[in-house]
Amino acid sequence: MREPVRVGQRASIRKTITEADVVLFGCVTGDMNPLHTDDLAARDSRFGKRIAHGMLGAGLISAVLGMQMPGPGTIYIKQTLNFRKPIFINDTVTTTVEIKSIREDKPIATLRTTITNQDDELVLEGESVVLLP
Amino acid sequence: MREPVRVGQRASIRKTITEADVVLFGCVTGDMNPLHTDDLAARDSRFGKRIAHGMLGAGLISAVLGMQMPGPGTIYIKQTLNFRKPIFINDTVTTTVEIKSIREDKPIATLRTTITNQDDELVLEGESVVLLP
Amino acid sequence: MREPVRVGQRASIRKTITEADVVLFGCVTGDMNPLHTDDLAARDSRFGKRIAHGMLGAGLISAVLGMQMPGPGTIYIKQTLNFRKPIFINDTVTTTVEIKSIREDKPIATLRTTITNQDDELVLEGESVVLLP
Amino acid sequence: MREPVRVGQRASIRKTITEADVVLFGCVTGDMNPLHTDDLAARDSRFGKRIAHGMLGAGLISAVLGMQMPGPGTIYIKQTLNFRKPIFINDTVTTTVEIKSIREDKPIATLRTTITNQDDELVLEGESVVLLP
Repeated sequence: MREPVRVGQRASIRKTITEADVVLFGCVTGDMNPLHTDDLAARDSRFGKRIAHGMLGAGLISAVLGMQMPGPGTIYIKQTLNFRKPIFINDTVTTTVEIKSIREDKPIATLRTTITNQDDELVLEGESVVLLP
Repeated sequence: MREPVRVGQRASIRKTITEADVVLFGCVTGDMNPLHTDDLAARDSRFGKRIAHGMLGAGLISAVLGMQMPGPGTIYIKQTLNFRKPIFINDTVTTTVEIKSIREDKPIATLRTTITNQDDELVLEGESVVLLP
Repeated sequence: MREPVRVGQRASIRKTITEADVVLFGCVTGDMNPLHTDDLAARDSRFGKRIAHGMLGAGLISAVLGMQMPGPGTIYIKQTLNFRKPIFINDTVTTTVEIKSIREDKPIATLRTTITNQDDELVLEGESVVLLP
Repeated sequence: MREPVRVGQRASIRKTITEADVVLFGCVTGDMNPLHTDDLAARDSRFGKRIAHGMLGAGLISAVLGMQMPGPGTIYIKQTLNFRKPIFINDTVTTTVEIKSIREDKPIATLRTTITNQDDELVLEGESVVLLP
């Protein structure tokens, strides 16, 4: 049996966001925004080059919650997302979740969730509420 | 030149969530939670069969915002997500966004975002804040 | 050294067109036509269910030309395509190419190209002109 | 209700052809021609580096027809393709369709279809015949 999680516990996953990831994320969601698919349009944009879908970052948060901590069986209730900076293709990002509180009456936890890039810049942050496994 | 968006304006996209979508979403995000990848585990879970990643739904919201309305050039600032029901493989879901308010001082809009399934059940709802193109 | 090809020579490849093939073809080309992605819309269409992209069939012709006969090094000059019937998801189709003529002055061949389904119905036919390897 | 299309009407989509697109197109069609998959073979070929599948370009034409103009519901009848120049990995190509004629007795249109690269070179051109939605 798994140990129960406790406040302050953290987990993280690091991953390089490849061009293939962006192509496949676009195909699954149907999001073919030129910022992700058109090099020329992206060069003329405020970002100067193609960026990953912001929601790909949200998928990374979901992965840490479901794979690492609280782990398999976790059920998502809520997530808030604040997009701080773009993730560029070939950035290597670290997605971290940390337990902030656990309800006493129900197995429901609130976690702080952050994504930082290889330059330690915060690209995405927010809060998860999950039903513990 | 595109018309400016106005309060009350809506857009939506309908899509069947295939098994391939779930496989690819898992591979891009690394979220290999048994609920998505293990038929036997999913059968023994509260859902009774494999479900799509909740964040795949979030990606659909992003697609409507970036492709339809406000459309290309939209920049994500915030998103809240309340997961109401699971999306099962082969569900056909409709993702809708509607402009609730636009700031007077800046081109920033707040939208209500919902996903419903083929039985008109609400599976995901929340709020987006975006910088208009 | 490979034997030169001759008039009348044939080659074919058989393949099941899976749902994953259709999802990935859509993502590479950006073709998210509801006939391919929306089960409900496809059910209401003249076809009654989701169909594969016609051009996925064209890609199969290219595969036989480049992999089997004339084989690696073949350069595409022209292709004509007549779409006769839809390819449905899970159809198993046979793609056949046959050399009809070879120019005497240049290593350029004309081939008849056909795709048939598991019921021996002709779904796609046309003509290729290629520069021989 | 959508406006009927008229002669002279045009639509186009621009997209960067990524390495991932070429890998996925190869996997869906089975076309693993060394010109697309083998860097060393491609370097020794007339092209000097890996090229995209010509039929990937054909898929882009299909996307513009089905997504933009004439739009959803369009049924493919015929396509001719003349391959003028290769599309290299990382080229950004513009796919354009223009209505040349519409039959008076039936809702059937003929369109000129072209693909140009970032240097305005014509890489693929041909003609489509489609049943209008």
